[in-house]
Amino acid sequence: MKTLQVALGERSYPIYIGENLLLQMELLTQHIVNKEVVIVTNTTIAPLYLQNILAVLADYQCESVILPDGEQYKTLEVLNQVFDGLLKAHFSRQVTLIALGGGVVGDMTGFAAACYQRGVPFIQIPTTLLSQVDSSVGGKTAVNHPLGKNMIGAFYQPQCVIADTKTLDTLDDKQLSSGLAEVIKYGLINDAEFFGWLEQNMAALRARDAAVLAEVIERSCRDKASIVADDELEHGMRALLNFGHTFGHAIETGMGYGNWLHGEAIAVGMMMAADLSQRMGWIEGDMVNRIRKMLISAGLPTSTPDEMSVDQFMGLMAVDKKVQDGRIRLVLLKGIGKAIISDDYDKAKLVETLEFFQQSH
Amino acid sequence: MKTLQVALGERSYPIYIGENLLLQMELLTQHIVNKEVVIVTNTTIAPLYLQNILAVLADYQCESVILPDGEQYKTLEVLNQVFDGLLKAHFSRQVTLIALGGGVVGDMTGFAAACYQRGVPFIQIPTTLLSQVDSSVGGKTAVNHPLGKNMIGAFYQPQCVIADTKTLDTLDDKQLSSGLAEVIKYGLINDAEFFGWLEQNMAALRARDAAVLAEVIERSCRDKASIVADDELEHGMRALLNFGHTFGHAIETGMGYGNWLHGEAIAVGMMMAADLSQRMGWIEGDMVNRIRKMLISAGLPTSTPDEMSVDQFMGLMAVDKKVQDGRIRLVLLKGIGKAIISDDYDKAKLVETLEFFQQSH
Repeated sequence: MKTLQVALGERSYPIYIGENLLLQMELLTQHIVNKEVVIVTNTTIAPLYLQNILAVLADYQCESVILPDGEQYKTLEVLNQVFDGLLKAHFSRQVTLIALGGGVVGDMTGFAAACYQRGVPFIQIPTTLLSQVDSSVGGKTAVNHPLGKNMIGAFYQPQCVIADTKTLDTLDDKQLSSGLAEVIKYGLINDAEFFGWLEQNMAALRARDAAVLAEVIERSCRDKASIVADDELEHGMRALLNFGHTFGHAIETGMGYGNWLHGEAIAVGMMMAADLSQRMGWIEGDMVNRIRKMLISAGLPTSTPDEMSVDQFMGLMAVDKKVQDGRIRLVLLKGIGKAIISDDYDKAKLVETLEFFQQSH
Repeated sequence: MKTLQVALGERSYPIYIGENLLLQMELLTQHIVNKEVVIVTNTTIAPLYLQNILAVLADYQCESVILPDGEQYKTLEVLNQVFDGLLKAHFSRQVTLIALGGGVVGDMTGFAAACYQRGVPFIQIPTTLLSQVDSSVGGKTAVNHPLGKNMIGAFYQPQCVIADTKTLDTLDDKQLSSGLAEVIKYGLINDAEFFGWLEQNMAALRARDAAVLAEVIERSCRDKASIVADDELEHGMRALLNFGHTFGHAIETGMGYGNWLHGEAIAVGMMMAADLSQRMGWIEGDMVNRIRKMLISAGLPTSTPDEMSVDQFMGLMAVDKKVQDGRIRLVLLKGIGKAIISDDYDKAKLVETLEFFQQSH
């Protein structure tokens, strides 16, 4: 087992990465405050792992809340089911919430923990590659609003993250690829060496080589933890982690939550950001091709959905959180491993990028 | 104008108290980050003051959200109207929210500000005595859940509080009395001198003597700010401010939100806490009578609602936030101005108190 630390002063916490960690009781129980526990999971994950966790926590007052599975259920309304469960059990401010599932479960459970009685502790047990390498780390929690993704939420850090690589065995290929999009992102924004390593190891990753997967999770978490430790509340450089996300969120919202996987939308978003960076003269065409090749080798899409118009993109991007004084701030590239946050791009070229992707269908 | 400071490090903020402060533009505008502003108010307050504020903010991109008036609308569902307003206007993370109204508007606006894009600034403009002396100060924000009051919320501090005493002119007598319950509470928990002063000045207060009202607001805010500065997140002594609230929240939830005013329920709750304190032998009967006399002189009730049974009280009190390891922690009295937080009372005597109040009908 590897242990990484997210260094955030009194809000610091460990990330445990390894095989069969779900069976190691103390890993979990040392982070539970008293006897009250609510496990939040979904209809896909519950049949696979819920009984394991309940068995480990046999001595606790343990309730579970099973949410429907999918990004389309990441709403305030469904969040209320967690509050219902907590209040029906008469659980106090000392309750500990456990998020058992992918990014949607983690984001919702974390937000519920941030709000229940104005804040109770929670633990992340991510069961998808995407949540193990990205969403479970860093304390961003949220639900979606029909007009924008992750618009309602909190910065709220967990007590610990337990990433059991064994849970990836049950992940389907599409979900695995979705997680790889965020992995590739870390390479592109500030870790060129990691990007090169991924080019070498993509086949092994997609074949689910356990050692290679464990290394990918560790390196990704290390990259993310380092950025988060420097800028917990995203006043500055943390925004680099949104590379591909302003375009990608527009796709997720525009296509209807749950129809595109998050990583798929982010993959296309990264291609669009790379294209705009090339139009600005900041990177060469062969670099864009290298990115495209990587995404394709990861099983990810690189073209926008047929249904979405340039106007729809512009409207949805204007709602995203990166807008400042009416300018859409974007994360763009000046090289592999060299991302920048910029509102200093030519807006006409942004329109060219959107038109180019639309015409490529 | 008086200015008090709530000392919370980088989250410190001023409370301005005085007459006609709503007409002083800079007071407000110095705390607005950029041009985006959403004013949240309700159907009662909007006709009285919304135009004033909009006029003051004529140079801003100003939207308003008008909520229905009443505690029964302090829900996640109604909160969504604020998010709708923010997102329809495409407002960014630099938006400033303004709460214009009483405690419900303040609690909901503050919680919306805590959650929108994971946190945007907000300003409190309380227009009731209760919100001027209590709820606008200290950063407790929340909505209710059918199973418990203020169960979903955040600790989130405003940029400033603007308490314009002129707005109290339009307050009805019942609302004025409701605010006085929280004022009396400050005297009871740790300011015996203030309690004595209130006994002398209650008639002038109820006659709305402007100078006496201003002094009451200032002393109350000063008492509260001092407690909050020492214990922002209620790990300890801040819980003293919940004197009367575990009983009172049970009444508010049991009777249906909006049927009893908050201060009315708290007044009865304080009587119940005083009664239990007497049964424990901690205070004398003449002290209980002095408290009863004060509440009656403030126009407040001192008896529980006929409809509520002992069992209903016990069930609802067990859900309140003061429960720790299955014991209901209560704020009780050892004298006027000497409140303590205790789970070291005789539970049989708590039942005696509940029975006594029920039999008094």
